[in-house]
Amino acid sequence: MTTTPEHLAYVLRLADTALILGQRNAEWSGHGPILEEDIALSNMSLDLIGQARLLYTHAAALEQQLTGRQRTEDDYAYFRAEREFANYTLAELPHYGPLAGTAQAEKDYAVTIVRNFLYSALMVHLWNALAASSDEQLAAIAAKSIKETSYHVHHAGEWLIRFGDGTEESHRRAQAALDYLMPYTSEFFSADAVEDAIAAAGIGPRTSELEAAWLDEVRATLDEATLTLPAPLKHVSTGKHGEHSEHMGFVLAEMQSLARQHPGATW
Amino acid sequence: MTTTPEHLAYVLRLADTALILGQRNAEWSGHGPILEEDIALSNMSLDLIGQARLLYTHAAALEQQLTGRQRTEDDYAYFRAEREFANYTLAELPHYGPLAGTAQAEKDYAVTIVRNFLYSALMVHLWNALAASSDEQLAAIAAKSIKETSYHVHHAGEWLIRFGDGTEESHRRAQAALDYLMPYTSEFFSADAVEDAIAAAGIGPRTSELEAAWLDEVRATLDEATLTLPAPLKHVSTGKHGEHSEHMGFVLAEMQSLARQHPGATW
Repeated sequence: MTTTPEHLAYVLRLADTALILGQRNAEWSGHGPILEEDIALSNMSLDLIGQARLLYTHAAALEQQLTGRQRTEDDYAYFRAEREFANYTLAELPHYGPLAGTAQAEKDYAVTIVRNFLYSALMVHLWNALAASSDEQLAAIAAKSIKETSYHVHHAGEWLIRFGDGTEESHRRAQAALDYLMPYTSEFFSADAVEDAIAAAGIGPRTSELEAAWLDEVRATLDEATLTLPAPLKHVSTGKHGEHSEHMGFVLAEMQSLARQHPGATW
Repeated sequence: MTTTPEHLAYVLRLADTALILGQRNAEWSGHGPILEEDIALSNMSLDLIGQARLLYTHAAALEQQLTGRQRTEDDYAYFRAEREFANYTLAELPHYGPLAGTAQAEKDYAVTIVRNFLYSALMVHLWNALAASSDEQLAAIAAKSIKETSYHVHHAGEWLIRFGDGTEESHRRAQAALDYLMPYTSEFFSADAVEDAIAAAGIGPRTSELEAAWLDEVRATLDEATLTLPAPLKHVSTGKHGEHSEHMGFVLAEMQSLARQHPGATW
């Protein structure tokens, strides 16, 4: 198929969000609260980074077709600037949540779980839609990702119910995490020229078409967890347009520093 | 089967070494030099932590039979003191290697690879021997671990050859890592009352019986990598007796701090 700059931009959005969230979740590796959960979260992090690799490799083919430029998955991950990353802002936020910057700040597993839930619940619907993409490569990646993502949303949903319907403290933390993160989900559904173009080309849906189904699912789990859906905010975050929060620089520094110290190394 | 304190101590040695090395390797998670390698090493780290979990669960059954005390895998991992961990010292060393403490200190992938190679080359032989253990649970864990460990030694061996037979710099680093780590392998083979007891009970071999086969394999790979086997040292490290290097405290602090902040948490 012939490609367009919007097509490439769309694939990079998907890749960047998977990579950055995988990277964030990898911060728990070896620091988890229990061994079983440490391993489960590490495996889910590897799923996300694996999805990112497939998407970057596909993006590289699209970019070569568009501009003749040859890039690899590692070029995209390690050698782009913050402004060039198009992940949802939600993915780059630290695990500290609403206590960030206070004396009580420590990684909060409730933030991790709520984020994974909100994102994975969207992605199950989006991967299902993309499995019918006119871009056959993207359709294949989507088909492979559905199963992984279904597990992720199941895992996060179970924990969310356990937190929400658990102790007073775990309920309070889950609600605080939800109040903190929910506003960032508006970015999932904001339309722009990239989505207009990929929808017109049959590459993917406008994400706003998935909003009602996503919200139904979120509501159902929150009800079971005895948690309250926060009122929507007007502010829409802008990570997918390359305008990131103050946290993004730290994620990239952690991820990119070694590769940049040894550019072109044979390992 | 009836059990003995030595039997329990032996299973915990195996578990602790797998856990601590898995923990060390997880330090690369999200900081690897290339995406493919980041994922490969993370997966191998999860293999090791998975082996540790099975061994801890088995140890818990042995301990209950011995003393009536009920412990879980998480109790062993997160709520024992340094002195109670019986891992080989090799597993706890940082990735900094011979440059540790200098201005040039940074995580050195050559150290990571050489350590994985030396340890996994032993464990392929040891798991093979333990697959015939009179302890049927241990035999089953060993049988499951052979395939994983065979991949680990293959992976590390390939990298070792790539480093050793690569650039002048990569060769220098691989040789330095080998010179640094090789002396710690003497601990694999030092006999003690625990090994005497498990050998007498048919639970496992004296590890010294595996030394010749291990050394042949190490030599063959080092030859191909154009690396030189360092002369043996007289010093034998003592991690398996609970006497650890100055690095062990940091590994445990990283691993245990969260679980200890929330003892008994339902998550």
